[in-house]
Amino acid sequence: MNKPQDFPESWHPKPDLLPGISVDCVIFGFHDGQLKILLLEYKNTGLFALPGGFVQKNEDLDTAARRMLEDRTALSKIYLEQFYTFSTTSRRNDETHRTIATASGRTLEADHFIFNRFISVGYYALVDFSTVVPTPDAISDSCNWHDISSIPQLIFDHNLIVNKALDTLRFMLDSKLNGFNLLPPTFTMNELQQLYETILGKKLVRSNFQRKMLSLGILQRLDKKQTGAANKAPYLYCFIKPQTTL
Amino acid sequence: MNKPQDFPESWHPKPDLLPGISVDCVIFGFHDGQLKILLLEYKNTGLFALPGGFVQKNEDLDTAARRMLEDRTALSKIYLEQFYTFSTTSRRNDETHRTIATASGRTLEADHFIFNRFISVGYYALVDFSTVVPTPDAISDSCNWHDISSIPQLIFDHNLIVNKALDTLRFMLDSKLNGFNLLPPTFTMNELQQLYETILGKKLVRSNFQRKMLSLGILQRLDKKQTGAANKAPYLYCFIKPQTTL
Repeated sequence: MNKPQDFPESWHPKPDLLPGISVDCVIFGFHDGQLKILLLEYKNTGLFALPGGFVQKNEDLDTAARRMLEDRTALSKIYLEQFYTFSTTSRRNDETHRTIATASGRTLEADHFIFNRFISVGYYALVDFSTVVPTPDAISDSCNWHDISSIPQLIFDHNLIVNKALDTLRFMLDSKLNGFNLLPPTFTMNELQQLYETILGKKLVRSNFQRKMLSLGILQRLDKKQTGAANKAPYLYCFIKPQTTL
Repeated sequence: MNKPQDFPESWHPKPDLLPGISVDCVIFGFHDGQLKILLLEYKNTGLFALPGGFVQKNEDLDTAARRMLEDRTALSKIYLEQFYTFSTTSRRNDETHRTIATASGRTLEADHFIFNRFISVGYYALVDFSTVVPTPDAISDSCNWHDISSIPQLIFDHNLIVNKALDTLRFMLDSKLNGFNLLPPTFTMNELQQLYETILGKKLVRSNFQRKMLSLGILQRLDKKQTGAANKAPYLYCFIKPQTTL
């Protein structure tokens, strides 16, 4: 039986949404040397997608991204950054929309809102995946972390969106590091290097890494870490100040 | 007398354009120690604005940005980069649209397309302003370079768009340097430093600048420049390879 209250606003016959604009969120999860990405699987379809959706008529894009991420995955208070707007005319296809709606017991009229051309504004975030509990929404079977090295085929241009987000994450890592809030208030150079190596997907030379990080002017050196072995104890660091918002 | 062929498509009663999406271009001009920005002045209004416009139904955003920049300023073959999508609900106002249309002899119906909510995708470019000849379109009085330190009040959120573009230009300078194509095939470290100082709007310490540029791994050192004074001749450099497209 249809339960209309479980349908997203976008499946209503005349949804009260901004025409032509959607938002897609690439949520990277980091923990203990692993980099993952958060994907939804649409109910009864085996179709994987980024958490995304449409924009309300009185809502800016940042607000829309935060709202729909929470609606679709239950992740709240995530530091989302806009990174690129995707607009190729061939990026979506009507058949996929029909498959997803039908599998959840809904038929969409041929002239339905959802078959319009949409451009999609991409947002990304990097979170410690051990600290959040993703929960699928009513039209999804699952909401799970997938290893970055084995991302399945996604609907539409979502694999392209993931790749662009990953390029952006890696490119922006120095300047976003503090904002991502992934490290404890004080940390060792080794902990910082492990985070970089996981996200960049490669090993780094310790001396070069340390020289580069210190040259960025974002770290303050504190006392040595209390380990019991005083001579070998590593220095602790903290961030000097918030990063730029760019 | 109205000359409808001079009106932009967006002023037609039912324009064949994508609803809700516009594009605005921030064109930075660099030459001989000066950094400028290209602005249009709408006919008979004294209102300054970025060159921008609307997106055709079968056009992606990159194509739209290139097309409208050429339509509105006569600048062609410019390397435009998308940088941010602007979406606050209060970013435009109807009265400004009416003023601009009326001053060009056009009345827009109350429910006209142009009064819808629009989000705008920002593009930027950096060009040598001595090599191009900006030409205003039919609905503008002028299309001129304005010094970055004395930008007039612009319509809508265009001053905010300029500031975000300038932040992006400065942040991305290292990685976009070759793509901007502002330097001759070979150049001295001094010429490169002058370009940086102009765009960053501050003096740089020569030794630090040289060390940083060489550490980026994008420059190849060539022979010394022929100046007649062999001992003081500076080295010439060229770019090793194209920059990343991010």
